[in-house]
Amino acid sequence: MESSNASRRVQALQAQLEPDSNTVCITFPGRNLQYLTGFYEAPSERHFLFFVPAGSAPIALVPELSAADFESAAPWVDDVRTWTDEAGPQDALSAVLEEIDPDRILLDDTMWARFTQDIRTHCPAATYGLASEVLTALRIRKDDTEIAALERAGAAADTAMNAIRSLGSDAIGMTEIELARRIETELVEAGGTGTAFETIVGSGPNGARPHHTSGDRTIRAGEPVVLDFGTRVDGYPSDQTRTIIFDGDPTDRVREVHDVVREAQAAAIDAIEPGVTAASIDRAGREVIEAAGYGDRFIHRTGHGVGLDVHEAPDIVAGNERKLEPGMVFSVEPGIYLPDDFGVRIEDLVVVTDGGAMRLNRTDRGL
Amino acid sequence: MESSNASRRVQALQAQLEPDSNTVCITFPGRNLQYLTGFYEAPSERHFLFFVPAGSAPIALVPELSAADFESAAPWVDDVRTWTDEAGPQDALSAVLEEIDPDRILLDDTMWARFTQDIRTHCPAATYGLASEVLTALRIRKDDTEIAALERAGAAADTAMNAIRSLGSDAIGMTEIELARRIETELVEAGGTGTAFETIVGSGPNGARPHHTSGDRTIRAGEPVVLDFGTRVDGYPSDQTRTIIFDGDPTDRVREVHDVVREAQAAAIDAIEPGVTAASIDRAGREVIEAAGYGDRFIHRTGHGVGLDVHEAPDIVAGNERKLEPGMVFSVEPGIYLPDDFGVRIEDLVVVTDGGAMRLNRTDRGL
Repeated sequence: MESSNASRRVQALQAQLEPDSNTVCITFPGRNLQYLTGFYEAPSERHFLFFVPAGSAPIALVPELSAADFESAAPWVDDVRTWTDEAGPQDALSAVLEEIDPDRILLDDTMWARFTQDIRTHCPAATYGLASEVLTALRIRKDDTEIAALERAGAAADTAMNAIRSLGSDAIGMTEIELARRIETELVEAGGTGTAFETIVGSGPNGARPHHTSGDRTIRAGEPVVLDFGTRVDGYPSDQTRTIIFDGDPTDRVREVHDVVREAQAAAIDAIEPGVTAASIDRAGREVIEAAGYGDRFIHRTGHGVGLDVHEAPDIVAGNERKLEPGMVFSVEPGIYLPDDFGVRIEDLVVVTDGGAMRLNRTDRGL
Repeated sequence: MESSNASRRVQALQAQLEPDSNTVCITFPGRNLQYLTGFYEAPSERHFLFFVPAGSAPIALVPELSAADFESAAPWVDDVRTWTDEAGPQDALSAVLEEIDPDRILLDDTMWARFTQDIRTHCPAATYGLASEVLTALRIRKDDTEIAALERAGAAADTAMNAIRSLGSDAIGMTEIELARRIETELVEAGGTGTAFETIVGSGPNGARPHHTSGDRTIRAGEPVVLDFGTRVDGYPSDQTRTIIFDGDPTDRVREVHDVVREAQAAAIDAIEPGVTAASIDRAGREVIEAAGYGDRFIHRTGHGVGLDVHEAPDIVAGNERKLEPGMVFSVEPGIYLPDDFGVRIEDLVVVTDGGAMRLNRTDRGL
């Protein structure tokens, strides 16, 4: 990310905080911090906090051993304070909070209790909220650079999905875990970096558990396999699902359920346009599944926003009256899950455009 | 994990909570929940909370789409309450907390602010602490099953490290990222599952940044490369670092610094025995580095505990007066970092035994 871009985002955040209020937004390693500064590392037990006060310059409190990496990523942050393992973080944290003396603190939504408990000890009189109260408004619409990265990530996932589908009968006899490793190799070869989330290979009855990852079960002919995986390109993730029969013939039931899910996905995507609600997209797909008699076996929301986080706003779920706007990106992933039998899910990412929706995944949606 | 084992751990936790107090310990997806129940999934935005009250049976609040997986992992949990995306989690959460009506709540140390804010809204009058206040005492000493898994993970990492070292001049010209991918392939071939943390390949000056991961820089002859990586076997991680010259000759300075770090690591490990403090182990290694004139370039603690979490208690750091006990497992990883020049770190995991320390890594510690 360009420096100017990151500091513009901090300014946009400050504008949300009302300059006269004594509010501070505190992020820690994760996607909010990456969005604001371009710096990413996995969260860990060391205090790494980025303070954006409403009316003054941001302050970074950084473990000494991450300081050089943070400073190269965000050279425009002038006030970087480091602490050593020997000294510990408490004195430095106390000094920053006394200086800012906030009335209200917005905590990074994924900040660990380890850190929020400390902040609360230092500021017992402040009121508390979540960073998403102000950051969602900024992050929910993706700019052209972000959409381009999401498109590249989607293309990498498509390349891998095509390679996996073309295994055909070679996949029979592989374990779910072996197939997952093969997927991950294909993702890297397609230009991706690592996995965006734990790769899901749900064969036969395991496909009926939406959050099943992968195990020792062997892929068999004639049974559907749910493949849900993603990688990152330029920091942005892909997320796509196909349900595939690698060899042999599906039962009529599998074919019927797969057709219903595919039709539901198409109906949900057709319903997308600026100004309609997130809930209405969920409804459009769910109606198809309900009409086919499987309403109670579609046990999750239709989709979730995707940006630096694989799961972010907007939720495509009943009750979410948020109106869609161009630049929003989310998954559309209806599914039907028949316990102890099989499951089917079909998922693509889409960008809301002026005219409707643009898919970021283009591979065959058939069995 | 065997069911009886997991429920024994819940009982041990309850014993820590004092049966008459109205305390509840609340964990969420992560290593504490895995320790208590055998169930693991990555933390996500859906409310997934496991309540262990001091004096009554545990209650699991689980998103419907994870229910089958949780119930197979922990069939001994009788009270599992699920919520759907359509209904949302708030009513179910409110019901559980009203039922328990806690005076004191111990929050999982890595629980997201998203969830802690919700719990605080439901229970504004309770006092709050961290789950580690009671769980560290249980987790810090590993039982034989845990140590056996850590040994297997260490052996897998050793196999991969030997394979990588044997690349020799073939590694010259690879980028850090390419070498990281190669390491990860070797880890899987050695029987590991995924990476335990982001693989670090720090070549030349990048080695001077302890938390540098890996980038596009090319490995060159004659320069040291810091390799810090781990995988998991049976749920438990490895964590090992070597600093290697793949081809060509090191400078005298590199050789000298490497000798100092190696000597410091040996001194720290020699100092380990039951009854001595964690701080004294840090001191033993640090003295060697200080005596060589590099005290200010050893910018982190000597080590960290390792169990289901790659970083857990005990911290091997100045000020930690905790006494070592048999069954504790931690890293010993002194380093010297010369900015813009190079870095050296050497790390092994050790188990405290009655007689001293047993190393879990046995590969060549030379350049």
